[in-house]
Amino acid sequence: MSLNELGIVRRNITRADPAAVEQLAQFGVATIHEAMGRVGLARPYLRPVYPGARLCGTAVTVLLQPGDNWMLHVAAEQLRAGDVIVAACTSECEDGFFGELLATSYRAHGARGLVIDGGVRDVRELEEMDFPVFSRAIHAKGTIKATLGSVNIDVVCAGALVHPGDVVVADADGVVFVPAALAAQVAEASARREDNEAGKRAKLASGVLGLDMYNMREPLARAGLKYVD
Amino acid sequence: MSLNELGIVRRNITRADPAAVEQLAQFGVATIHEAMGRVGLARPYLRPVYPGARLCGTAVTVLLQPGDNWMLHVAAEQLRAGDVIVAACTSECEDGFFGELLATSYRAHGARGLVIDGGVRDVRELEEMDFPVFSRAIHAKGTIKATLGSVNIDVVCAGALVHPGDVVVADADGVVFVPAALAAQVAEASARREDNEAGKRAKLASGVLGLDMYNMREPLARAGLKYVD
Amino acid sequence: MSLNELGIVRRNITRADPAAVEQLAQFGVATIHEAMGRVGLARPYLRPVYPGARLCGTAVTVLLQPGDNWMLHVAAEQLRAGDVIVAACTSECEDGFFGELLATSYRAHGARGLVIDGGVRDVRELEEMDFPVFSRAIHAKGTIKATLGSVNIDVVCAGALVHPGDVVVADADGVVFVPAALAAQVAEASARREDNEAGKRAKLASGVLGLDMYNMREPLARAGLKYVD
Amino acid sequence: MSLNELGIVRRNITRADPAAVEQLAQFGVATIHEAMGRVGLARPYLRPVYPGARLCGTAVTVLLQPGDNWMLHVAAEQLRAGDVIVAACTSECEDGFFGELLATSYRAHGARGLVIDGGVRDVRELEEMDFPVFSRAIHAKGTIKATLGSVNIDVVCAGALVHPGDVVVADADGVVFVPAALAAQVAEASARREDNEAGKRAKLASGVLGLDMYNMREPLARAGLKYVD
Amino acid sequence: MSLNELGIVRRNITRADPAAVEQLAQFGVATIHEAMGRVGLARPYLRPVYPGARLCGTAVTVLLQPGDNWMLHVAAEQLRAGDVIVAACTSECEDGFFGELLATSYRAHGARGLVIDGGVRDVRELEEMDFPVFSRAIHAKGTIKATLGSVNIDVVCAGALVHPGDVVVADADGVVFVPAALAAQVAEASARREDNEAGKRAKLASGVLGLDMYNMREPLARAGLKYVD
Amino acid sequence: MSLNELGIVRRNITRADPAAVEQLAQFGVATIHEAMGRVGLARPYLRPVYPGARLCGTAVTVLLQPGDNWMLHVAAEQLRAGDVIVAACTSECEDGFFGELLATSYRAHGARGLVIDGGVRDVRELEEMDFPVFSRAIHAKGTIKATLGSVNIDVVCAGALVHPGDVVVADADGVVFVPAALAAQVAEASARREDNEAGKRAKLASGVLGLDMYNMREPLARAGLKYVD
Repeated sequence: MSLNELGIVRRNITRADPAAVEQLAQFGVATIHEAMGRVGLARPYLRPVYPGARLCGTAVTVLLQPGDNWMLHVAAEQLRAGDVIVAACTSECEDGFFGELLATSYRAHGARGLVIDGGVRDVRELEEMDFPVFSRAIHAKGTIKATLGSVNIDVVCAGALVHPGDVVVADADGVVFVPAALAAQVAEASARREDNEAGKRAKLASGVLGLDMYNMREPLARAGLKYVD
Repeated sequence: MSLNELGIVRRNITRADPAAVEQLAQFGVATIHEAMGRVGLARPYLRPVYPGARLCGTAVTVLLQPGDNWMLHVAAEQLRAGDVIVAACTSECEDGFFGELLATSYRAHGARGLVIDGGVRDVRELEEMDFPVFSRAIHAKGTIKATLGSVNIDVVCAGALVHPGDVVVADADGVVFVPAALAAQVAEASARREDNEAGKRAKLASGVLGLDMYNMREPLARAGLKYVD
Repeated sequence: MSLNELGIVRRNITRADPAAVEQLAQFGVATIHEAMGRVGLARPYLRPVYPGARLCGTAVTVLLQPGDNWMLHVAAEQLRAGDVIVAACTSECEDGFFGELLATSYRAHGARGLVIDGGVRDVRELEEMDFPVFSRAIHAKGTIKATLGSVNIDVVCAGALVHPGDVVVADADGVVFVPAALAAQVAEASARREDNEAGKRAKLASGVLGLDMYNMREPLARAGLKYVD
Repeated sequence: MSLNELGIVRRNITRADPAAVEQLAQFGVATIHEAMGRVGLARPYLRPVYPGARLCGTAVTVLLQPGDNWMLHVAAEQLRAGDVIVAACTSECEDGFFGELLATSYRAHGARGLVIDGGVRDVRELEEMDFPVFSRAIHAKGTIKATLGSVNIDVVCAGALVHPGDVVVADADGVVFVPAALAAQVAEASARREDNEAGKRAKLASGVLGLDMYNMREPLARAGLKYVD
Repeated sequence: MSLNELGIVRRNITRADPAAVEQLAQFGVATIHEAMGRVGLARPYLRPVYPGARLCGTAVTVLLQPGDNWMLHVAAEQLRAGDVIVAACTSECEDGFFGELLATSYRAHGARGLVIDGGVRDVRELEEMDFPVFSRAIHAKGTIKATLGSVNIDVVCAGALVHPGDVVVADADGVVFVPAALAAQVAEASARREDNEAGKRAKLASGVLGLDMYNMREPLARAGLKYVD
Repeated sequence: MSLNELGIVRRNITRADPAAVEQLAQFGVATIHEAMGRVGLARPYLRPVYPGARLCGTAVTVLLQPGDNWMLHVAAEQLRAGDVIVAACTSECEDGFFGELLATSYRAHGARGLVIDGGVRDVRELEEMDFPVFSRAIHAKGTIKATLGSVNIDVVCAGALVHPGDVVVADADGVVFVPAALAAQVAEASARREDNEAGKRAKLASGVLGLDMYNMREPLARAGLKYVD
């Protein structure tokens, strides 16, 4: 029962291979999600807090209590260069758990951004710092520091299971989590998928129909599609 | 019972007159909605996927199944220059039915954009292409191609009834559908409304009160409004 | 029972001291909310209708009926330079109660913007005018002028109680209401808070951990936090 | 453009054949929806206001304005024995448009119930009267009588298109609309479906697997399903 | 600024006159809301946690912090026979703040029920005790006791302003708050309204149309209503 | 990466000890959740489809695709007496994935009920069968059988991680998942908690305040609580 244990900070986690992380950083979330076999996506209510926000790194996970950001402070000490904080909450809460001061601290410790199933504030300052954040809400309301959660346990963030050390990739299309052990393999599959798409794009741009390029006419007819005038 | 018939592609539809479409393209959605007598609007959860997106064209309608974008491929063949794809779904679904490759194909066939009561992905690429899309969600999650819906039947999209060939206008204020037969008449009424507004705008800017300009004081008093100090 | 009385326009209200309003205008919503002791915030569903919108002024309050913007016209006459219209509604309604023409009129009478627990339209024009609006929705749908609400009574707007004359501050983080009598005191507390934060920011940027800066290690241990490898 | 015309009461509508209506009354909503080819369902947010509510009748349609129930009074005069009022609204509104007094009037004119994409009140009294109502909300808030909508025009109710005279069937599973011209045919298909299900039910109760009864093993294997230990 | 002060328990509050409370207990929420001039209603998301729940009493108000029910314990000591606890929260939170043990304690101190803009648990036991509760959610998740809120300050509960000592009435139609000073007057107006409705009910039951009983035909014609065949 | 693998049916799973399951069946969801240390709860939007529904058993997990219930048929063969089907979906979908026929089949194979992060139909029949179901929606809309998901993999259901063989307990307060290996230990802790609560209940019923019973007065004073008159 590693999920959701309260009051634990795990110091040693196995991060995905840095080379694989850098490879994954070159692909979009939609491509990676497809390359993984359509798993690992967060629910679409996680959105960037400013246009153009984008991140790729290894997850340091945090389990928060509603209205309480104590564990976000605890997590700072566990950050290594290239990490992304991934924060879940024991209940749905849109309070502003995170702002400019924590972003300053996180950046000083090498963090590349934050994914949080909760609210954040100071979004103008976050944009000025270009510290990418993906959240479920923007809310000026502050939080307290009173109750233990955990750091670096498995968490469910916006409906997706995340293990410490997983690769997190987020862009305008959403947030995807890649298990550390699969990072290289998914990066390769993403590259193949992109190569494959380049050819398709050129054909489609020239006017070839997907109906023909994907050989859909026969299965459509078999399924009973009827053309009428 | 033309609504929601499954497994049908209608090839011949009556599109609104192109001249009327171009006239309508000059007006905002709020103006057109007023000019039509306050009908034909989609629910406000349809939003542009990038700032400044705007479109006006004739509807090629699509009825999708949840998690399945097969019919969006079928629809490509029915596009003519100046069309906009208007996609509804048999249930509420935020999956990413549409992305850059379909946009490339649609553009090659003359489409001006997409209105979809579902999710889309590749929104950064859509913005780079300047292919306007109005959707209920942004989601990286892909879809399958397994179940028939229909093309060019009447559909209910975000609470509004749309017939193939209707004019679709969408901007930052929302999405409105104008029946093909009324396009010219609504364009004229929109023009009159805009002319009328120019005069009002000047008066209001000079400090004249709407209370006086619209002669509201007497009906307000009759309704019982009381001024107190 | 001053709340929600219908059919009343109060002409004489006590506005916050202009000097205090200008002081408050220098701070962000999150700072002011903290400086007030974490009270006075609107729910986070109120959002700016264009990026960068920001306002600070004294509240002229309006209570609307669903689908009816009559009282927004009545309110125009009560505006003084430096005011912000704060509109609540007797039920949840996303209709477009407000647009460019009212904005033109409001500006002519010195208003600095609008906060509305409802919908608005003409958002491109509002951005061009740089007339800041914070709303719960964007919707092209128009409203009627048929039923009385009130002007300058206490209202509940997005879950927050607002009295006429209170200071309203809104930015990307949300909307906060400061009671008129407390404006100067809250401005001072905000300034102290900002000074205090500058020091913290520098420390955090240099790599000092919040754990140490805020002396959290001992209370965390007492609460039972365990570090594991 | 018969949809959403404002200010119209159509007196002569073609109601579905009463015999077909009585036949349809014997089937559940899920069965009828399947028998129609999976079309015609309202969104699932329409719910019965008391347990066990159930209705079947011919639609008298109403288009309401937000916060205004004037047209529900106008509709009473158009009711014939066996009718069900089906009310849509020009925007999303949860006000209590309907209560005990209107139910008393409707019953006196032969109505069998109400389906409304809005709120209702007096739900304890409605249960005591056993006047079935399906609504999107329960809300004590009253409405005004100030703005015209229409009666007996085509409306979109909870995402479904409804024509005056269509058959409306509602039970614990939801609300379905059957075009008047298809009522008899759908009733027959529903009966066949129920007969068919009786045999299946007996087989499944005896332990036969759907996997075998529906011959799913081969298509599952072809789709790539793998059994692991 | 009496609203939302944190860390305060007010011991002496002015409760509504008990005789007026008992009079109000005889009327439904919809009637009382109308009798007050259509003000004072909570948003409709507050629902009874079991069928038939109904309460009327004087408000002891509580302001909670998210995920923390400490103040519900503090409030118990302030209860007098005939009180109802009315709990608001500084942010939206569906945690289970309240259950059977607190209900047992509250009943021992004379409370008649609870209205809470948050979640509760033990709903089967609450039904067995017949302790009426109106809440925004049912959730087994427990809360902590760590942060101060307040007792007997003005609060905004589900969008309605509530003062300590106000009358709270809740039934299947929702929750309404009557200012203490107006209780007798609103009870009388409610009685008149009920008398008036009895006569209307009889007429409507006999088939008289609201169109005639309320003299609507002339204003409808003036508004432009058209009857077509 | 055992989570969300598609196209897999695991036949051998380790179910929780039957004796521990029977012990857990005696406790409510709120008690078990507390006894586990406040982890393992589903989000509160999962609700019983009829009053009084309640279940306890071992999880057979299913991952569904939106609008597709094929895997619910595949799962039937994996059921053993005492199991509960726990179904998640790759996206949010309220379609009616499950109804009376599947319930009949499941019961024939020993299932005790269903927990599904999706919609179901035939709820009147399910109540008549007393087949307990907890779902996010009730919807008559049917589903197809076209795309592979999986059976008996780890799934995230309504925000909670579930492993095949875990104990599932559901009642009016919600749904909780207990890891198989912890079932006996959690049952014991639940029993202790209930014993403990009996004593507290008696004291509270006699009028003892929680303030005194839990020794809260001193920490409240230390936190700064002030009593005013």
